[in-house]
Amino acid sequence: MLTTMMLVLALPALAFAQDAPSTADLSLAMDTMWVVIAAVLVLFMQAGFAMLEVGFSSMKNVGSVVAKILVNLAIAALLFWAVGFAITFGTGNAIFGTQGWFLAVPAGQVNDVYAGLSWTQVPLSAKFLFQVAFCAVSLAIVWGTMLERTKFAVYVVFAVVFAGLLYPLVGHWIWGGGWLTELGMQDFAGSTVVHLSGAMAALAGTLLLGPRLGKYDDEGRPVNIPGHNMPLAVLGVLILWVGWYGFNPGSTMAASTQVADIALTTTLAAAAGVLGAMSMSYMYRRNIDVGMGGNGAIAALVAITAPCAFVAPWASIVIGFLAGVIMYATLVFVDRIGVDDPLGAIAAHGMGGIWGTLSCGLFTTPALAAVGEPGLFYGGGFYQLGIQALGIVACGGFVFIASLAVFAALKATIGIRVKPDQELDGLDIHEHGVFGYPDLVATDYQNGNGHTRRAPEPVSDTAEGTA
Amino acid sequence: MLTTMMLVLALPALAFAQDAPSTADLSLAMDTMWVVIAAVLVLFMQAGFAMLEVGFSSMKNVGSVVAKILVNLAIAALLFWAVGFAITFGTGNAIFGTQGWFLAVPAGQVNDVYAGLSWTQVPLSAKFLFQVAFCAVSLAIVWGTMLERTKFAVYVVFAVVFAGLLYPLVGHWIWGGGWLTELGMQDFAGSTVVHLSGAMAALAGTLLLGPRLGKYDDEGRPVNIPGHNMPLAVLGVLILWVGWYGFNPGSTMAASTQVADIALTTTLAAAAGVLGAMSMSYMYRRNIDVGMGGNGAIAALVAITAPCAFVAPWASIVIGFLAGVIMYATLVFVDRIGVDDPLGAIAAHGMGGIWGTLSCGLFTTPALAAVGEPGLFYGGGFYQLGIQALGIVACGGFVFIASLAVFAALKATIGIRVKPDQELDGLDIHEHGVFGYPDLVATDYQNGNGHTRRAPEPVSDTAEGTA
Amino acid sequence: MLTTMMLVLALPALAFAQDAPSTADLSLAMDTMWVVIAAVLVLFMQAGFAMLEVGFSSMKNVGSVVAKILVNLAIAALLFWAVGFAITFGTGNAIFGTQGWFLAVPAGQVNDVYAGLSWTQVPLSAKFLFQVAFCAVSLAIVWGTMLERTKFAVYVVFAVVFAGLLYPLVGHWIWGGGWLTELGMQDFAGSTVVHLSGAMAALAGTLLLGPRLGKYDDEGRPVNIPGHNMPLAVLGVLILWVGWYGFNPGSTMAASTQVADIALTTTLAAAAGVLGAMSMSYMYRRNIDVGMGGNGAIAALVAITAPCAFVAPWASIVIGFLAGVIMYATLVFVDRIGVDDPLGAIAAHGMGGIWGTLSCGLFTTPALAAVGEPGLFYGGGFYQLGIQALGIVACGGFVFIASLAVFAALKATIGIRVKPDQELDGLDIHEHGVFGYPDLVATDYQNGNGHTRRAPEPVSDTAEGTA
Repeated sequence: MLTTMMLVLALPALAFAQDAPSTADLSLAMDTMWVVIAAVLVLFMQAGFAMLEVGFSSMKNVGSVVAKILVNLAIAALLFWAVGFAITFGTGNAIFGTQGWFLAVPAGQVNDVYAGLSWTQVPLSAKFLFQVAFCAVSLAIVWGTMLERTKFAVYVVFAVVFAGLLYPLVGHWIWGGGWLTELGMQDFAGSTVVHLSGAMAALAGTLLLGPRLGKYDDEGRPVNIPGHNMPLAVLGVLILWVGWYGFNPGSTMAASTQVADIALTTTLAAAAGVLGAMSMSYMYRRNIDVGMGGNGAIAALVAITAPCAFVAPWASIVIGFLAGVIMYATLVFVDRIGVDDPLGAIAAHGMGGIWGTLSCGLFTTPALAAVGEPGLFYGGGFYQLGIQALGIVACGGFVFIASLAVFAALKATIGIRVKPDQELDGLDIHEHGVFGYPDLVATDYQNGNGHTRRAPEPVSDTAEGTA
Repeated sequence: MLTTMMLVLALPALAFAQDAPSTADLSLAMDTMWVVIAAVLVLFMQAGFAMLEVGFSSMKNVGSVVAKILVNLAIAALLFWAVGFAITFGTGNAIFGTQGWFLAVPAGQVNDVYAGLSWTQVPLSAKFLFQVAFCAVSLAIVWGTMLERTKFAVYVVFAVVFAGLLYPLVGHWIWGGGWLTELGMQDFAGSTVVHLSGAMAALAGTLLLGPRLGKYDDEGRPVNIPGHNMPLAVLGVLILWVGWYGFNPGSTMAASTQVADIALTTTLAAAAGVLGAMSMSYMYRRNIDVGMGGNGAIAALVAITAPCAFVAPWASIVIGFLAGVIMYATLVFVDRIGVDDPLGAIAAHGMGGIWGTLSCGLFTTPALAAVGEPGLFYGGGFYQLGIQALGIVACGGFVFIASLAVFAALKATIGIRVKPDQELDGLDIHEHGVFGYPDLVATDYQNGNGHTRRAPEPVSDTAEGTA
Repeated sequence: MLTTMMLVLALPALAFAQDAPSTADLSLAMDTMWVVIAAVLVLFMQAGFAMLEVGFSSMKNVGSVVAKILVNLAIAALLFWAVGFAITFGTGNAIFGTQGWFLAVPAGQVNDVYAGLSWTQVPLSAKFLFQVAFCAVSLAIVWGTMLERTKFAVYVVFAVVFAGLLYPLVGHWIWGGGWLTELGMQDFAGSTVVHLSGAMAALAGTLLLGPRLGKYDDEGRPVNIPGHNMPLAVLGVLILWVGWYGFNPGSTMAASTQVADIALTTTLAAAAGVLGAMSMSYMYRRNIDVGMGGNGAIAALVAITAPCAFVAPWASIVIGFLAGVIMYATLVFVDRIGVDDPLGAIAAHGMGGIWGTLSCGLFTTPALAAVGEPGLFYGGGFYQLGIQALGIVACGGFVFIASLAVFAALKATIGIRVKPDQELDGLDIHEHGVFGYPDLVATDYQNGNGHTRRAPEPVSDTAEGTA
């Protein structure tokens, strides 16, 4: 009778084993699905950067912008596959990973070889896919300051160095088991790793490159060079905003209810960032600057990237609003001291990244502090704030100096800036043999427009063009 | 021996508890993931509205359009977080919710405080995220009629009122446990809550605002003012179409096979809507009007929003095709009676919303009628149709009157319309200090274009421009 | 006592049944969710094709392009619902399915009626949704060669034939249990079914249509007609790239870790394709051609579509790079022999599809060969390569001949090409009554631009336009 009962009890179990997956299988499949979807959202951000850069560029340079996006994405994918991922997450020392080149690892040894990502159960392909998308975002940020005057070869060479070495080193320090991991630095989705790194390389590049022709008048005062297409710029902002739901919630690298909590702080911060920047614009210039609204959203998204999993919704609003304010102030300041940053990358990604990384030390709640200490606001003391500042200085400083060296070497050899007449004519025709908008340029050039741009003047009603 | 057996039986259970999540955990994580993804798709619709509005606007106003999108999204997110969500889904009375301000609710009490959403198990953050995206869509619809002549301050003030009060009230009535919930009104994803509400506010606004300059000739006949960029308009339509797969299937707020069934009815309806509207355009004007095709898709998507979970595929085709036809007829009618609706919001979202809400009373199948009665076609009698009509009149009427009051108050104080010369010059230069397309405007203005627009005339072959 | 124990054991099981879903339920819901999300990504590719076609077209024809996208998507959805899906996946003979019209099948009989898709457990609605999105992609490819001179009616009639008959037949042969399924042909996500089919119809169409006016000079040498908007073209490429993560990984039609593996090969191939095509462009013309980079990515994505689930990451890089090279060479060759292909569809989708399908016979690894043999590289012999070649010749040949017949019949009756003056003026004004960019055309036409386009000439610095 016992035997009979055991058989009866065993039957459903057998059926279970044959017909339905185990909960472990389901959990693995679900986590994989989430990480792949999140990676796709982050890859979609390339379209956001493309539209943002196009929108803030002059018409004559847009072909160059989009060619660069494609080539950089391609280089980042292949370099990070070959060496970058191993340096970032490979098991190694406090400074860099030393294992796992070319993803060539037997399935059973993945967690040994990539100790830096052993905390997530998803397959190696999913780990790589998500992380390579991050590397490509960081690389895209670099060029926000260098638009409209950089030689195309510079994009190619620096992409190799950045995706293959600089970004992976910083990534290893903070995320891959390196020395800042050990100290307990908090940077959930990469305010420092991804955004500050990109912005510091951008700063180095623009310092060596100098401002665009016409950016400063004879007395050194900044001249406003408006982007040529606000709809595409805002399309870019909205695509980036949407992509950030892969960036931040996806950094769980697992499906869980935490995903929604992170999406919430991300949303509130972005909304507050728009209002922060637009308030500044209205207070100081009495207008509603479209570009500022977009950059406010981006600065806030950058800032909430580090603390998104650690802070309460109200804190995310504070972080986002102040990110918008800080971005605006930085943009004005940077412009005045002669640093030409067409896209506001230093203000949005640089200062946004610094503020976001520091904000962990202020607002991280005890319940959510997976690593490190709670923030000052919750009585956590200055230790965590110090770690965050140390991380900012170390990572930001390293990327700045290393990038400065690389750009200086390029400047001394192949040169980093196009010739003045090429800059005036636009990069498209000289380096790409085609204009971004071929049907328009003839008209545009015949009117002398598109060379040195100027802010258009309001025109009162004239009737001659009406039918 | 029995003890031994029990241990043996217990072992897998213990292993289960330690190594793998429970099915309840998995189910919760999966539902959360789906709701977050659906919310992201709905938030992406903001890019769709931006491109649609840009495409159907004049060049001189596109900067204003995209600035508005960003500011409105920000306001909606913060207002709905602070008060809107509590009014909509908070436990309260038949008219409004009275609990749950600022999402500040202990985890264990979520279902008590937000009784209106206690039917879904996802965490509060996910519930909010999905619903705030809906609120932002409804707000975006409002401005479709009011483009190209509204003061920016109006966008700001009305957004506060709409996202903080008007939309939440209607949402509470139908979805949040209010009086229409009690009566069994069927509105699965918001043909009335989201779309009709937005359209009725739009109608109120445009009646007080009046038509754009040049929209009607000296004898009061409507003049066609074409949008300036059909590619971006259709990009907007396609983004909205894609976003609707978050809107409708996501309204399950749970992962299930029903998600696919709803995606199917949504797809077939949209396809039929394109053909419905294009057929009308071809029959009446002998051309294939791009904008009509896009508006047909949107009208059909609006219409299928209420019944998407309740009807068979064949019925979704009927609903979508007729939505396209009704949209076209409404557009022509509205235009003739002097109501200037640049985007067709009244036709697509208003009449589409009414038709879709009513269609539940006609086509809801007995097997799928979760609440209320089956439709007339299945012998359900007139009761459900009456409830649907009552909901339309009550909600549409309330939003119309309340919006009329708000806009009238604004008109009497700060004013709602820009000055004529600002309208002729374009909103961008006056309110935003920059043109949407700065490189183009000089050329454009020199040719007198962009002031009073006109339908371009076909030009026979002229050779002077050829190479 | 035994009874007691059984009750004790039964209690958790009962609780389980009441409170939590079974693993089978969860698995089904998860698979459904993944397939729906993947279908949405594939449907989003319509926006990618729209932007790509717009970007590579002349300004005067963009309205026509986007109208066609909407109408084609609508026709494909309804035709594939009515008959196409049944022909493709319905149980039948080696040539076509004979059951399952209008999706009208009782739930319990789905696997009997659609034997071709019985290997996936997702509901019928999810199966259809994913597959109809594929059909719409294949149809979109057809028009890449026929832009800027085709009558709108041709788009409508051919869409009916293609979505209702031609595509379903090829789909049945390879995927639906037809004769190539039986032979073990490998085409995981449709390099042949989707891409080669579209490209062969495109080739047939353009041969009957002839090149655009001005495409060849008096001595028959090809003239470069640049597209009018590179930013939108690259936006299209990036949207397609993102959509491909639904296309390839979604073809598992189930959530699993394999999804990430496929996303990895897809990513690496696309990256290598950009570099392959750009290298060719730089070697042969010393410039970085934006359009070539985009077409390289597309050709590589097309090529990896067939082998994405069967090959190692290193092989995906080889496949992608060579796809870019082959695409470039084909483009130059096709252009020279007088076949005008504005979008490069024959090169990217045609040759990319052929190369990808063949590559299975070279690189399929033994561990991943679910059907058929491993590739030559792994000692699999020539059998599989032969099957792949046979499939290419049979499917490509069939679609080419059938399409030629349909287009010839249309040419003999309603005509397939617009009149020369309509082509010169642009399709928008003649067939759609509106320009794609109404604000711009007046200016543009006054300058004689937009008729016969020409490559813009570099202009040296002129100062008259500066402020």
